[in-house]
Amino acid sequence: MSRNFRELLEAQWEQSKFLCIGLDSDFDKIPESIRQNGTRETIVAFNRTIIDATHDLVCAYKPNPAFYEAHGDEGWNALRETIQYIQDSAPEVAIILDAKRADIGNTNEAYAQSAFDHLHADAITVNPYLGGEPLAAFFDRKDKGIIVLCHTSNPGADEIQALKIGDQPLYKIVARLASEKWNGNGNCCAMVGATYPEELREVRAIVGDMPILIAGIGAQDGNLEKTITFGLDSRKRGLIVNASRSIIFASAGEDFAQVVRAKAQELSAAIQKAL
Amino acid sequence: MSRNFRELLEAQWEQSKFLCIGLDSDFDKIPESIRQNGTRETIVAFNRTIIDATHDLVCAYKPNPAFYEAHGDEGWNALRETIQYIQDSAPEVAIILDAKRADIGNTNEAYAQSAFDHLHADAITVNPYLGGEPLAAFFDRKDKGIIVLCHTSNPGADEIQALKIGDQPLYKIVARLASEKWNGNGNCCAMVGATYPEELREVRAIVGDMPILIAGIGAQDGNLEKTITFGLDSRKRGLIVNASRSIIFASAGEDFAQVVRAKAQELSAAIQKAL
Repeated sequence: MSRNFRELLEAQWEQSKFLCIGLDSDFDKIPESIRQNGTRETIVAFNRTIIDATHDLVCAYKPNPAFYEAHGDEGWNALRETIQYIQDSAPEVAIILDAKRADIGNTNEAYAQSAFDHLHADAITVNPYLGGEPLAAFFDRKDKGIIVLCHTSNPGADEIQALKIGDQPLYKIVARLASEKWNGNGNCCAMVGATYPEELREVRAIVGDMPILIAGIGAQDGNLEKTITFGLDSRKRGLIVNASRSIIFASAGEDFAQVVRAKAQELSAAIQKAL
Repeated sequence: MSRNFRELLEAQWEQSKFLCIGLDSDFDKIPESIRQNGTRETIVAFNRTIIDATHDLVCAYKPNPAFYEAHGDEGWNALRETIQYIQDSAPEVAIILDAKRADIGNTNEAYAQSAFDHLHADAITVNPYLGGEPLAAFFDRKDKGIIVLCHTSNPGADEIQALKIGDQPLYKIVARLASEKWNGNGNCCAMVGATYPEELREVRAIVGDMPILIAGIGAQDGNLEKTITFGLDSRKRGLIVNASRSIIFASAGEDFAQVVRAKAQELSAAIQKAL
């Protein structure tokens, strides 16, 4: 059964689903009521509870491998099982591996194998610092979404990303390269932090109807209304709005699943209102 | 037993050891004569053979996690076992996880846990695109080496890294930030490709006696003589000269261990000659 990232997204956008939940499943924050014997089992149980509670509300899930790698092979197994569970129980939902990878060409080929052949993710985030040439190992996977970091959500992002090349900040140069040079297979996407709404407006103006993954809603306090206003494409689509910690760690109690669903519904409704 | 990256390096440099071998253990290229039942066992056997054959010649080993992640939990276990084996059989040799990681702060904390608490690497390579602020999660590990990508070895590196900010290319801005702003704990290092010797000379002029990891010798055909001439610090130290494929895949035959050692000796002698 072949999956295509862009087709999955379009079908979800058709139903006005823009929410993405980040499965940043920090083991230490997993509620007692969810815990099992074993690290792998606990992480998988946590993720399954979130997926069961929210899959009808989201266009995508976005696990960040850092929180799985922190637990080595057990974490890695939990990540693979989580992706398998999404594909089995909610096959309409896209899966974005937020790995922010970038290396030289033959190494990126190994990362692409990991993300797509082993884990079976539908998309991956990549870092532009090494240029577009070694990223070809990712872009060559035509059914997969390759999401290039343009302007990240962290407070110190401007130290590098806002450096001016002539009169253009670096993040706009990256957005232009992504849009005009790296998108030969039509599978390039952009990532922008909701904590930088003006920069999002500029990136959208550059990338046309390219999908944009938005980080920084929720715990990082990004601006949702401006994100929607500035981020939608010409078809009123094109956005994947991610929240992680504000949803998945919203409760440590027995009511975990209900609170997670309520928080996801709340954010989903806020997105609808802003549309 | 506490290990300190800089102290390990200084002790090896004292003995004029500058060679680093990249354990980019691409499963498909592992010789038949080494193969075991099982992916994990095969990768570990391959790495152990290389380590046994070369540990007296090197200052460091540099596994790249991409080649392990490509095989999921089995690869991850092989990576951990490999690092454990180096620490047991050659405790004087430093271990650099060439992960090129970078994410927002709380995520980098999870990556640091993975690299240092789970895998027990002595150093990690990091990507500067998100700025120094989120890298604090790495820099806070004072005994560990945090190696910032300045100018990478790949053919297309200049697309981003040579963009001019005023009259300064980006890689020089990154080198200056690494040296002057991000090195509060004295554990920051730089990475430069041997395929760009003039850029190495410029980076060395900026970073003073900071250790520089050199990629791109061997398969990527970097210039060894210029690397040594331009890369050494004021004490005639400060370099970690890595080769990966040209050593570890030098033979597919029964003579694998001998050829690997011969290739490592040859490169080690060439480094001595250039010193």
